[in-house]
Amino acid sequence: MGGDYAPHEIVAGAIRAQAELGVEVLLVGDPEQIRSSIAQHHGSSQIEIVAADGVVAMGEEPLVSLKRKPNASINVAMDLVKEGRADAVVCAGHSGAAMAAALLRLGRLPGIDRPAIGAVFPTIMAGKPVIIMDVGAIVDCRPKYLEQFAIMGSVYSKYVLGMEEPKVGLLNIGEEECKGNDLAIRTHQLLRKNSRINFIGNAEGRDVLSGQFDVIVCDGFVGNILLKFAEAVGEVMLQIIREELPQGIQGQLGTALLKPNLKRIKQRMDHAEHGGALLLGVAGICIISHGSSQAPSIFNAIRLAQEAIDHRVLERIKANHFKKSKKSVATNSSSEE
Amino acid sequence: MGGDYAPHEIVAGAIRAQAELGVEVLLVGDPEQIRSSIAQHHGSSQIEIVAADGVVAMGEEPLVSLKRKPNASINVAMDLVKEGRADAVVCAGHSGAAMAAALLRLGRLPGIDRPAIGAVFPTIMAGKPVIIMDVGAIVDCRPKYLEQFAIMGSVYSKYVLGMEEPKVGLLNIGEEECKGNDLAIRTHQLLRKNSRINFIGNAEGRDVLSGQFDVIVCDGFVGNILLKFAEAVGEVMLQIIREELPQGIQGQLGTALLKPNLKRIKQRMDHAEHGGALLLGVAGICIISHGSSQAPSIFNAIRLAQEAIDHRVLERIKANHFKKSKKSVATNSSSEE
Repeated sequence: MGGDYAPHEIVAGAIRAQAELGVEVLLVGDPEQIRSSIAQHHGSSQIEIVAADGVVAMGEEPLVSLKRKPNASINVAMDLVKEGRADAVVCAGHSGAAMAAALLRLGRLPGIDRPAIGAVFPTIMAGKPVIIMDVGAIVDCRPKYLEQFAIMGSVYSKYVLGMEEPKVGLLNIGEEECKGNDLAIRTHQLLRKNSRINFIGNAEGRDVLSGQFDVIVCDGFVGNILLKFAEAVGEVMLQIIREELPQGIQGQLGTALLKPNLKRIKQRMDHAEHGGALLLGVAGICIISHGSSQAPSIFNAIRLAQEAIDHRVLERIKANHFKKSKKSVATNSSSEE
Repeated sequence: MGGDYAPHEIVAGAIRAQAELGVEVLLVGDPEQIRSSIAQHHGSSQIEIVAADGVVAMGEEPLVSLKRKPNASINVAMDLVKEGRADAVVCAGHSGAAMAAALLRLGRLPGIDRPAIGAVFPTIMAGKPVIIMDVGAIVDCRPKYLEQFAIMGSVYSKYVLGMEEPKVGLLNIGEEECKGNDLAIRTHQLLRKNSRINFIGNAEGRDVLSGQFDVIVCDGFVGNILLKFAEAVGEVMLQIIREELPQGIQGQLGTALLKPNLKRIKQRMDHAEHGGALLLGVAGICIISHGSSQAPSIFNAIRLAQEAIDHRVLERIKANHFKKSKKSVATNSSSEE
């Protein structure tokens, strides 16, 4: 029920995912609206509807609304995962509410102090995406949170994105270990000492899309600004291209000839292709889609959820963290702050 | 003497600036190298050379090197401004060293606790650039520093970029005043209360290039990452275009037809057009160019310096701050933290 185009576009994406991906979709929300939307899309009557009552609207304070509306769609959807009736939640609504509902209803994975939102960016190297964590869950971070983000990101990069030994970078303003703000300098030391993280050093702004790094960790403040800037900058570039390319008669002819190639360029720059961001660190798979998501984004978000389930991301994170805890106890390590 | 292409490209840019902009350029560095470079470019013998001995290299610790090499080119250049022999310094070398030399040799403007580097970005609205401050001078900021950045940025936007009543935004992760990290929340309150700042609210990552804001303030950590990301993302987009556009026979033909338009697109995306960033808050005009600057960037950096001089940016900042100090004393204001 959340997002700018709910329920119509959400339903359309879900119908396509159920048909093409071989997943079973449960649509959570107002049954009447959903049924009418399914009918409009000529969707299968086999798609299951789970009734919910109310939505957390964009301006609302998440914690207050979630408690006042126990049957809001995001709460009901999280409960489906908790009860084992669903393997994942996909949500295009209030992302703060989704995060809070996940924490309240599902809880954190053992060994994780704070969940993080990971966003997968394409890089300049084809087939080498990078996952940026966190892009908005935790704005005031401690070094140990970023260390945990590095482990969760590595698990995701290795098992879902298929990178052999994911190279981890710390988002920073210079290459040298002395560079950065207080958080970055302290986190650098922590990452360097952790033998289970393949830390290759600081990543500057210019390195984010270079393909040199598979995982880049940062606090949610910087990450969120970077994510939203990256999304917008693609739009700005496309607008410049749209304005300049068809200028003049030669330009109009050339642009007409290039139509299929321009479409491919738009696809490579379009964030709808990526579907959504992952909330990692909670005890369930949660995909947080953009509020402006339409059917293609929702389809991709469901595919993302399917990949995370198939590659057993939660189990892998748990396994990595159990190891960690044991090691910490055995050596009485003081490297964590 | 600094930067990846010194002195050759620096000299080339300086020769062009002296010829086209009607400025008088002093080239500071090793006289022999500079003379040979001028000869290669068939430059005028009227360009003045000021001898300096040594350079602060990229890996060096600025403060240590500046003290050990009192005659390093950056030190000598700053002294020219201090002694009134030059109106501005343009530098493409170690930016940390440039900043430290400016602070040590020129000092801060009255009322300014920390200088900031301002970078001017083009926006989606033609003729409406935005200045982002700080993009790397101060990584751990206090609210009052950002308040000072807002004033300096407003002065620059108004008098140099010609915006009537510059709209100031605070870089943040949401529109609401409760959003953000600790620094952002506290800075929001300070900006809102300051009647000499036309604060219109938080600017999200997606708003940076929207043209809605004329000045955006942030700490130097976030700003530096954003600046370097923005520079790189233009490159990434251009590479995608270069790869995809000429695919197929139709593509090759279309691309050939579009050659002049593509050149214009490259220009609009190219950071060389912008020349450099301004170090505001020190008692002299300093332009910090990219280490990779070639002649066109240096030319533009010198033009930027000329504009800052012509529009008396230092005097305007001082005037704004004197007013501020008086007001603070008179009301014994506790709004500064």
